[in-house]
Amino acid sequence: MTATVHRLAGRPAPSLDPMIAVTAHDMNCVNSVILDRMQSDIPLIPKLAGHLIAGGGKRMRPMLTLASAAVLGYGGTRHHRLAAAVEFIHTATLLHDDVVDGSDLRRGKRTANIIWGNPASVLVGDFLFSRSFELMVEDGSLKVLKILSNASAVIAEGEVNQLTAVRRLDIGEERYLEIIGAKTAALFAAACRIAAVVAERPESEEQALDAYGRNLGIAFQLVDDAIDYVSDAGTMGKDAGDDFREGKMTLPVILAFARGDSDARAFWKDAIEDRRNDEAALAEAVSRIQETRSLDDTMARARHYGQRAIDALGIFPAGRAKDAMVEAVEFAVARAY
Amino acid sequence: MTATVHRLAGRPAPSLDPMIAVTAHDMNCVNSVILDRMQSDIPLIPKLAGHLIAGGGKRMRPMLTLASAAVLGYGGTRHHRLAAAVEFIHTATLLHDDVVDGSDLRRGKRTANIIWGNPASVLVGDFLFSRSFELMVEDGSLKVLKILSNASAVIAEGEVNQLTAVRRLDIGEERYLEIIGAKTAALFAAACRIAAVVAERPESEEQALDAYGRNLGIAFQLVDDAIDYVSDAGTMGKDAGDDFREGKMTLPVILAFARGDSDARAFWKDAIEDRRNDEAALAEAVSRIQETRSLDDTMARARHYGQRAIDALGIFPAGRAKDAMVEAVEFAVARAY
Repeated sequence: MTATVHRLAGRPAPSLDPMIAVTAHDMNCVNSVILDRMQSDIPLIPKLAGHLIAGGGKRMRPMLTLASAAVLGYGGTRHHRLAAAVEFIHTATLLHDDVVDGSDLRRGKRTANIIWGNPASVLVGDFLFSRSFELMVEDGSLKVLKILSNASAVIAEGEVNQLTAVRRLDIGEERYLEIIGAKTAALFAAACRIAAVVAERPESEEQALDAYGRNLGIAFQLVDDAIDYVSDAGTMGKDAGDDFREGKMTLPVILAFARGDSDARAFWKDAIEDRRNDEAALAEAVSRIQETRSLDDTMARARHYGQRAIDALGIFPAGRAKDAMVEAVEFAVARAY
Repeated sequence: MTATVHRLAGRPAPSLDPMIAVTAHDMNCVNSVILDRMQSDIPLIPKLAGHLIAGGGKRMRPMLTLASAAVLGYGGTRHHRLAAAVEFIHTATLLHDDVVDGSDLRRGKRTANIIWGNPASVLVGDFLFSRSFELMVEDGSLKVLKILSNASAVIAEGEVNQLTAVRRLDIGEERYLEIIGAKTAALFAAACRIAAVVAERPESEEQALDAYGRNLGIAFQLVDDAIDYVSDAGTMGKDAGDDFREGKMTLPVILAFARGDSDARAFWKDAIEDRRNDEAALAEAVSRIQETRSLDDTMARARHYGQRAIDALGIFPAGRAKDAMVEAVEFAVARAY
């Protein structure tokens, strides 16, 4: 199966490489800021933060800030510090997420909470979060501060929303979209939008970049949630079935439940309500999701949001940066299975 | 035993009441902001936050912002929102602290982590923390944002510092002062200092209020750490012996260990390194702390910092607000045993 978003036939598979290339020079500067500002006199802080920060993440969110600045032809350096702030917010969220979910594996490595314990992960997350605000304050734009402090509050609300939705079969697609719009897409949107603020572009361009980031973020999370029902720890660095075992109501499950007969619904009830979620149950879940085409349709939803992200870029001039941002979307929705 | 900080003979016991009276009207406004801004469409957020926020805290830190503004004769309303931001930072810290320490009781009530679980406490803490920055951004002073974002990072560093100092007998008074200066005094200092910023007073007055808050914060924490070796859950709302059982190196223990003979040191080694901390061990710890006058001297240290706090107010005009701030210090260092 492959995802296509209006691609010309015969082109190679979409890749993140063009976006990495467009942002490579700036990303070196961002990495310097990140390394410099995760330091502390308390040795555990850089040790724990560095484990995750150096842990092979794609730096997707700061890369979006840089690519957005490139599409606007911004020639300054303010976005380096702000992209680092965005990455710190994301890293703080990951540290807290792994505590909340009790995760033991991320990107194929043991999580910080497993190595150093929950208390250290909570507190170093708080440190990185505070540090991200210090970076924004140094930049000095109240508009950027407003965008990112609002995104942070929305992320936390989304995480609490998700927590209260766990193991509840009555969660539907609308509530699910609300959750991923907050916990994932809000930071994608903000990461892109702040580039327009530092480049002093009109509101319409801020909104276009916000829409690009938001729709990409939703697509990205939909694909992530699909992957959880196809991947294995070896290939993706994330344990397949994590969401299933945690009783998270992601779209593949929501669709399979809604489309299922009474037999299927009884199965999902037992599984989601934590009475049956062993390996055999996971295998049955995967097959029920496939039978109902719920994975295909989760990917179709992702392509829908991906297409919206691409169309939001319409107002920007053609060029290498814009092409890279388009291809990043295509990559995001094609990366699954 | 009573603590005295150059008081006239015959005066009644010092009280927080004058400071409560001086700030009462403003505090109503702050409480409105707090109630309004802890709301969210996700019902668990106001429920959990409200449990702690309505849980009988003294609102010491926002009160300090208000009292500081009063001593400067500030007539505006900007400090209401900022005092609420300070309280949100503090509340977020308490939520995370209780998770980190595994506490089950605060101010005589069950903690949020016991009622709603660690994940919810971590995430609602994150929400309140983000919300506090939104409040500061609405105020719009980059100087205030700088002071409070720095204080937040310092607090998180102090908490990690404390975490890595747990169960370690080699922690001395200097390291202890570093920890409490960061985890407690930094927010006291910032809470006072921002009043001078909104009142647009000269740097010297900012520094004086910072010094007042910082020294009061250190005194406050010293007394808190002394109380842990005299109080019981019924009277203080905090379990006596919590620090002892958690292996925290607070000043009473640091002094008792340093002043003890080889017998005493063997006892402390077993106790702090978690081989012996039952009720009998706690009783022995209390008696060893008393024998070595370690509790008296912890209180003497508190009075020293309290006196410095009072002297920092020297540059401000006499009046009801200043008297209240002086008496708040006297109250803080007299409240122990």
